[in-house]
Amino acid sequence: MEFHLSPNGGVCSPRGFRAAGVTAGLKPSGQPDLAMLFSEAPAQVAGAFTSNLFAAAPVEWDRRVIRKERPVRGVVVNSGVANACTGARGAEDARAMAAYAAQRLGVETDEVLVSSTGVIGEFLPMETIRHGIDLAVEALSPEANQAAARAIMTTDTVEKRVSVTFSLGETPVTIGAMTKGAGMIAPQMTLCQSRPRQATMLAYFTTDAALEREALQQALDQALGRSFNRIVVDGDTSTNDTMLVLANGMAGNPVIRPDTPEVKIFAEALEACAVFLAKAMVMDGEGVTKFVELQVSGTLDDLGARQIAESIARSPLCKTAWYGADPNWGRILCAAGYSHVPFKPTQVDLDFDGLPVVRSGLAAPGSSPERLAEVLRKRSFQVSLSVGSGPGRFVLWTCDLSHDYVKINADYHT
Amino acid sequence: MEFHLSPNGGVCSPRGFRAAGVTAGLKPSGQPDLAMLFSEAPAQVAGAFTSNLFAAAPVEWDRRVIRKERPVRGVVVNSGVANACTGARGAEDARAMAAYAAQRLGVETDEVLVSSTGVIGEFLPMETIRHGIDLAVEALSPEANQAAARAIMTTDTVEKRVSVTFSLGETPVTIGAMTKGAGMIAPQMTLCQSRPRQATMLAYFTTDAALEREALQQALDQALGRSFNRIVVDGDTSTNDTMLVLANGMAGNPVIRPDTPEVKIFAEALEACAVFLAKAMVMDGEGVTKFVELQVSGTLDDLGARQIAESIARSPLCKTAWYGADPNWGRILCAAGYSHVPFKPTQVDLDFDGLPVVRSGLAAPGSSPERLAEVLRKRSFQVSLSVGSGPGRFVLWTCDLSHDYVKINADYHT
Repeated sequence: MEFHLSPNGGVCSPRGFRAAGVTAGLKPSGQPDLAMLFSEAPAQVAGAFTSNLFAAAPVEWDRRVIRKERPVRGVVVNSGVANACTGARGAEDARAMAAYAAQRLGVETDEVLVSSTGVIGEFLPMETIRHGIDLAVEALSPEANQAAARAIMTTDTVEKRVSVTFSLGETPVTIGAMTKGAGMIAPQMTLCQSRPRQATMLAYFTTDAALEREALQQALDQALGRSFNRIVVDGDTSTNDTMLVLANGMAGNPVIRPDTPEVKIFAEALEACAVFLAKAMVMDGEGVTKFVELQVSGTLDDLGARQIAESIARSPLCKTAWYGADPNWGRILCAAGYSHVPFKPTQVDLDFDGLPVVRSGLAAPGSSPERLAEVLRKRSFQVSLSVGSGPGRFVLWTCDLSHDYVKINADYHT
Repeated sequence: MEFHLSPNGGVCSPRGFRAAGVTAGLKPSGQPDLAMLFSEAPAQVAGAFTSNLFAAAPVEWDRRVIRKERPVRGVVVNSGVANACTGARGAEDARAMAAYAAQRLGVETDEVLVSSTGVIGEFLPMETIRHGIDLAVEALSPEANQAAARAIMTTDTVEKRVSVTFSLGETPVTIGAMTKGAGMIAPQMTLCQSRPRQATMLAYFTTDAALEREALQQALDQALGRSFNRIVVDGDTSTNDTMLVLANGMAGNPVIRPDTPEVKIFAEALEACAVFLAKAMVMDGEGVTKFVELQVSGTLDDLGARQIAESIARSPLCKTAWYGADPNWGRILCAAGYSHVPFKPTQVDLDFDGLPVVRSGLAAPGSSPERLAEVLRKRSFQVSLSVGSGPGRFVLWTCDLSHDYVKINADYHT
């Protein structure tokens, strides 16, 4: 199904959602640092979170809220401080952040979700947070797609948002979203009930479609697995990763039940938005100059293909070669070769944007480093690795490792 | 037991070994690029090799030679071209390299081991190799400790060699060694009979001690596990990793049998040399400015501690923070938290050179970023992470990720 995404849309695009992005004063830079999202009607919610053992206090709060299986009304997000590794005080701060926002919004504390992103191990300056919440409540507006998306940024250079409108039967419905990423990006989030795996990124989706909670989770699970869970920037994974979807039903469509054609359509639309944002996140990754689509196939199963793709995507030697447009394809075979996935080297083929580079484990006949270097100089290219005749396949979106990545992260504090 | 290592020694220090390092013409730079090692007497040999599925042709040749369980006489090593991912022609080139050296040395082809290091996917220029072998045979000398160690270097900035002399009963015996490393360093080599794991590094040990082949393997296995198999530079692992130990028995000691007090003493001496060289390899890693000893403890078993240590040692965010002396300790907890090793965040303690940084998963009382930054500005420091009360522990030696690492690897060809 074709969806027409609007990069100018955002979390306020669906009916009944208002948002705000303000400067509370958490960032030394004075950039916007607190975002708020509010739904006029109670919204069903589904969420996925980091699997890091050091899951941040706001993540734990959101898990508790979502496990209540009750509708929610709002979300408050701060950047600058992650409220991770902060123990009981951090947990109390997350709860207080939700409670204060709830009071100012006239809703219940457990109807408000919270997120934080920034430095690990520091406590939230609660006075500043409360001040930001005051400002945000005043600023709430249906026109805040951009302001909210900017307020959740950390090392991002551009805000990332999108919306899509499509029909469910007779009813037009809209999905809006915003996300931030840049560093600590290797998401493998799972539904908060499931056994967690990992991802630092924040992603918020809103929709005016009406869905049963379980249907919303089905859609989130599909969209997540085909978007944020297949990107790797630096291979590092955070304590705060959060993906939330709020559905307030104000479109008035017949409520979508699980395992129906309608949930399938909704899930595809959600996936389209999530893929758009996931790719944008890689493009805007810390110091990124090259976007690389890794296509691995021929393994016994998809998990094996994924393991090989992640081995390549995490390889400093592959990533620096891409950065330097160095036609050093041996590094890719090398990274596949130590991925602990079994395959026959003599059955390996490698292509860059359709240019044959390796055939049966050897330099492809007539391949030239010059032509490969031409591909590598592009802003974006595909690397296709086939390791056999098995049915396993996986596509992963990743990037290069540049001087700027080192620069950004060798002194994150300043 | 105390061993007095000599950094001026090398592979020629034991009786009956001669070596050479010459410029065959493989490197555009004109630096020495071919080394030869020769034993006047037949030498027992033990070896460990990369586990990469794309094991290079010389690795496969050496495995075949060692599996014959017969004494050997020499080793030829070239830098500049790795002879990896070169198929049948690469295999024939490796054999021809051994055969030509054997002929010039007046020994059998299967008495000569070969190694290659450099760019993957290119064929050996055999004319140049033969020319180098001619030069090396002429240059063989008992004074070539430095020349041989220099000829195996790639991106290394200093040659790495050592020797030690100690007593076995009444008999003084000597071990000499040389190694190269710098990039693609995350060795986890295994004996060529065992199921392989991984490592790019070359390490050659010689000794005039007399050992049965199995005793020599026991010693290699112990030394390897406590040295090269516990270092990580970039976490990338090569197709050519090789560790060889040649024992020619010319010291005249009673032949050492397996599982004896003598083999234990010999293994400790071998280990002392290997640890010295492994640390030197990390110090001289590509772009390295900081040497970091990671001590992880409190896991259920040593493997869990190792997995956490490797997760930290491979984390670009931890490594860039060390480079920038950024007191961002949260990144270390984060990397431990996504290592898939189970532990309780509330039981985690973290120290840098004895400075308490984290206690029970929280910033240690009175800890200051300034004092932590002081430690991080040192050329070398210890990071001690305790994640519980389990008996598991592991020590790993690693380094930072600097601008120079990116510079060196973004254009390896030039």
